[in-house]
Amino acid sequence: MKTIEKIQSYLQTNNIDAAFVTTPDNVFYFTGFRSNPHERLLGVMIFKNADPFIICPKMEMPDAKAAGWAGKIIGHQDTENAWDILASAVKDNGQSIQSLAIEKSHMTVERLEAITKRFSSLQINRLDEKINELRVIKSEEELINMRKAAELADYAIEVGCKEIAEGKTELEILNAIELAVKEKGAAQMSFDTMVLSGPKTASPHGTPGDRKIQKGDFILFDLGVVYNGYCSDITRTVAFGEPSPDKREIYETVLKAELAAVHAVKPGVTAMELDKTARDVITDAGYGDYFTHRLGHGLGISVHEFPSITGVNEMVLEEGMVFTIEPGIYHPDITGVRIEDDVVVTSDGVEVLTKFPKELQIL
Amino acid sequence: MKTIEKIQSYLQTNNIDAAFVTTPDNVFYFTGFRSNPHERLLGVMIFKNADPFIICPKMEMPDAKAAGWAGKIIGHQDTENAWDILASAVKDNGQSIQSLAIEKSHMTVERLEAITKRFSSLQINRLDEKINELRVIKSEEELINMRKAAELADYAIEVGCKEIAEGKTELEILNAIELAVKEKGAAQMSFDTMVLSGPKTASPHGTPGDRKIQKGDFILFDLGVVYNGYCSDITRTVAFGEPSPDKREIYETVLKAELAAVHAVKPGVTAMELDKTARDVITDAGYGDYFTHRLGHGLGISVHEFPSITGVNEMVLEEGMVFTIEPGIYHPDITGVRIEDDVVVTSDGVEVLTKFPKELQIL
Repeated sequence: MKTIEKIQSYLQTNNIDAAFVTTPDNVFYFTGFRSNPHERLLGVMIFKNADPFIICPKMEMPDAKAAGWAGKIIGHQDTENAWDILASAVKDNGQSIQSLAIEKSHMTVERLEAITKRFSSLQINRLDEKINELRVIKSEEELINMRKAAELADYAIEVGCKEIAEGKTELEILNAIELAVKEKGAAQMSFDTMVLSGPKTASPHGTPGDRKIQKGDFILFDLGVVYNGYCSDITRTVAFGEPSPDKREIYETVLKAELAAVHAVKPGVTAMELDKTARDVITDAGYGDYFTHRLGHGLGISVHEFPSITGVNEMVLEEGMVFTIEPGIYHPDITGVRIEDDVVVTSDGVEVLTKFPKELQIL
Repeated sequence: MKTIEKIQSYLQTNNIDAAFVTTPDNVFYFTGFRSNPHERLLGVMIFKNADPFIICPKMEMPDAKAAGWAGKIIGHQDTENAWDILASAVKDNGQSIQSLAIEKSHMTVERLEAITKRFSSLQINRLDEKINELRVIKSEEELINMRKAAELADYAIEVGCKEIAEGKTELEILNAIELAVKEKGAAQMSFDTMVLSGPKTASPHGTPGDRKIQKGDFILFDLGVVYNGYCSDITRTVAFGEPSPDKREIYETVLKAELAAVHAVKPGVTAMELDKTARDVITDAGYGDYFTHRLGHGLGISVHEFPSITGVNEMVLEEGMVFTIEPGIYHPDITGVRIEDDVVVTSDGVEVLTKFPKELQIL
């Protein structure tokens, strides 16, 4: 069954007249049409009992068609009111809707007001959980893209390691990585590539800059590559020159935590158990206060998607789920270290998509 | 008066208890703290009669402080409920709020529900227009950053032109541009850089790829650079080899339209008059159907911000406004051409920030 038909069947089961999907990543998931319309209206309207249509800026209509969407496409221009056009299109489709499912975690208050103004006494339902339920289980076709995206991420780390040299700046290394990855045919990184060195590794969300690499630094790469619309996300921390014993101890602790969590992945385990598996290793080693974030996050069309791998998420892992495992220790006086892999839950365990070595690389 | 005090004074005038600002760009505007928290809660709570505070992920608290925020910072971790923490922080600040102004064009339905659940019978007001009103007029300090961002964009186009050569791909040229700009110290592009060649120029939102440049192609660059948190956005279309007469005619038409609109900029003129000025030139030349988008958009901390320069926007231009002027003709059988400048409304006319030549460059 195509994913869009799964939504139709959901609407029928729950007796909801229509679903309006406007997150660009979800529009891509259901239609194959990838677009970033900024503030302009893009959406796919899916009806319980009628054919769906895409609404998008008029100038993108050919792109929607080229992406393989064979259904109706409604265009709107900057001088027109897109919401009036949406309302007419629903009516033209022979539909009067009394209930509508929306992505409450994405739709703005303003947009919901624009919709409710045009459809009287509309009942609003959440669509978020249904979409999460579909997207969280990756098909084999999706996994093929994700494996390739991870392969490109591994390659990017390899390039980064080769670029490390005394006196080079973080930004120089970053640019060399992105150039190399794009030369391999990747159109886009999953997010702003991070190359942090020395004390800057201790900031989980630091910004690469002009700092020059020095002997004794740890260098942290956090990056991802988009392949056919699917993201990878990898972190490796490497040493430039022989590391001090306290840095090495932090590295080995993070590695032990990461491996413990990766090995714990299988159907039936909960997200919170995974987080605890890694966190316990770090806490037992005395660094608990320096592991300041969740263990990981879902990965796919979005670089951060459902599920969140936290200490409070009771969700049970199932075959086909893909997420990151990325424990870290951020010690302001010693160093930061994070190690991150992308993993798939298989029928009896785990497939690790990112394969760059995790033993401490001393360059 | 600091911008945050302008919001406090607005709240007092309108008797609204507090404003909760969560757009990352607006948080930066009011606090100097730039962060992209993804799905995590980031916001600044501004009270009518109490000191404001920032709420952000705990691991970003040092960054908020480092960015110069001297007030209170409330942190939350992935295992905690950020909304409960927000509610407590409001109470701890000695505040009970009955009315709250929010950015309706940004806040999600889910987040508003999380807030209203925690503050009983809360009246919700729009803050969007007030923030637009403040942000649309750039201070001299902001303009200094925007001039520098535009200078970097000019430099990027210069690099792009030098890189053009028979057989090079769009992506190769794109990478060379970004590398050169980053070597100049720019941390970030304003958006995904666009390098389109030949027939691909006819898509206003095309994606750069492996197409190899050929003699006779037009090449369209659309890019921007972020400097100190402020964006530039420039488009130039250049010819590789002597262009055919029909391509040249399209180029000259777009240029004439662009110059007409730029020269029309001054306080008192409306946005729609500007759009019409450019559109009339293109329509009179017979290409009206191929100019499929608005004339431009506001520019500043965001690459697309208020105001929208469309044929229906009656907003009157004032000194200090900054926006793009970017007419285009997208002819599927001949070529696409777009020319885009960033302009500031001055006391008696216009300052053009982007300065790369606009006469057809034949390379």
